Amino acid sequence: MNTDVITAAILVIGDEILSGRTKDKNIGFIADYLTQMGIDLQEVRIVADDQDAIVEAVNALRARWTYVFSTGGIGPTHDDITADAMAAAFGVGIDHDPRAMAILKAYYDRSANMEFNEARKRMARIPFGADLIENKVSSAPGFKLDNVFVMAGVPMVMQAMMDAIAPTLETNSQVLSVTVDSGMGEGLVAGPLAELAKEHPAVIIGSYPYMKDDVFATNIVLRCRQKDDLDTAEAAVHAMIESLRGKKQMIL
Amino acid sequence: MNTDVITAAILVIGDEILSGRTKDKNIGFIADYLTQMGIDLQEVRIVADDQDAIVEAVNALRARWTYVFSTGGIGPTHDDITADAMAAAFGVGIDHDPRAMAILKAYYDRSANMEFNEARKRMARIPFGADLIENKVSSAPGFKLDNVFVMAGVPMVMQAMMDAIAPTLETNSQVLSVTVDSGMGEGLVAGPLAELAKEHPAVIIGSYPYMKDDVFATNIVLRCRQKDDLDTAEAAVHAMIESLRGKKQMIL
Repeated sequence: MNTDVITAAILVIGDEILSGRTKDKNIGFIADYLTQMGIDLQEVRIVADDQDAIVEAVNALRARWTYVFSTGGIGPTHDDITADAMAAAFGVGIDHDPRAMAILKAYYDRSANMEFNEARKRMARIPFGADLIENKVSSAPGFKLDNVFVMAGVPMVMQAMMDAIAPTLETNSQVLSVTVDSGMGEGLVAGPLAELAKEHPAVIIGSYPYMKDDVFATNIVLRCRQKDDLDTAEAAVHAMIESLRGKKQMIL
Repeated sequence: MNTDVITAAILVIGDEILSGRTKDKNIGFIADYLTQMGIDLQEVRIVADDQDAIVEAVNALRARWTYVFSTGGIGPTHDDITADAMAAAFGVGIDHDPRAMAILKAYYDRSANMEFNEARKRMARIPFGADLIENKVSSAPGFKLDNVFVMAGVPMVMQAMMDAIAPTLETNSQVLSVTVDSGMGEGLVAGPLAELAKEHPAVIIGSYPYMKDDVFATNIVLRCRQKDDLDTAEAAVHAMIESLRGKKQMIL
């Protein structure tokens, strides 16, 4: 693991994802977001609404990666246990936070028919020492403890929180990426592509099969932080495909 | 953890998911599939195409849960390292498997313009002691080592493999589920729902906020293996909502 590289993990918390009832949309969004910023997402875990499971996962991830982004479990109901689990993971206390209480009180004061009741006050429970993360959608804040960002699970709220967090993150120089559709199956491409990958060690070369009209085709994806290296490798891939097309026609 | 319950984990292997380039569709499919069969999905991990990461994840998951289902990384190219990583995780050897070679040879013999080349032979590399998993779509088999099922990442192929695996799996009695749309925000529902959850300990009660026309609403999901307990709890939820509607109108 190169320690100079800024890395990240996602921790999705929620029984509803594991039961299949809700299809997660946050992983793909955050993955795109981090890639565009120049942060390397290295691991994702999805765990149940279970304190032991959350504590174990967040402690494993925060020790290993630069940043951890969690989603889910910070609402007002009895199954929202993320804030308490995070406090337990960090070994700190938790209570109603005066800053969060003020934000929520102002929000519900503006509402004609929503009362700032005990359940809603639960959303102001924030572990000691945490910074708040702004929520422009529904006010109830997320929070940051050390390198862990604790966000809502509702996609629209999570996305607003990512926008609030983004300016505070350190990033790598961006990874440039280019996709070449080889127009042929992975089995034909694989041999020459492995050679090509050895000749261009600075470039991460992935090969992704897909089905189109019941025939397998292959996208070749090149990723690199240096434009020169990427351009050289891309030219080599195009030359490889031309050469393979020639051979294919000779076989036919 | 109740050891009588049949549990499962999913391990998704692939740089393309972590970079955001490919949006995973396998987790949601397998989650639904297992829930319908009566197997409790407890954890999901997504890791890179990196041997150390795969080995660590699969060893953690297979020790903890009844079954592990992996997807991705068993194709013919240089970045397909799952079979070798699984062999390393189990401490067994790996080589071209005669059964897999026969299946693949027959498949390519039937093809006019696909040669059974070295790259494609790579897909016959199977760890020693593994059982093969049939692939009705593109023939290249998955495999099973102890409680770990190693499947393709292409959704259509993975789904065919799940169908092949399903009859061999032990299951719990099915979890019954009912969803009640409360028609009101989580903050209003949360207090009484927490009481209700305490009174019905056999039923897992989840509360899932969603936005509709820019207003928060809440689905209440009840899950239980016993129909009687589920019915009683559902009736209690409906009574709770009626009571809250009355109070809401009195406030307005």
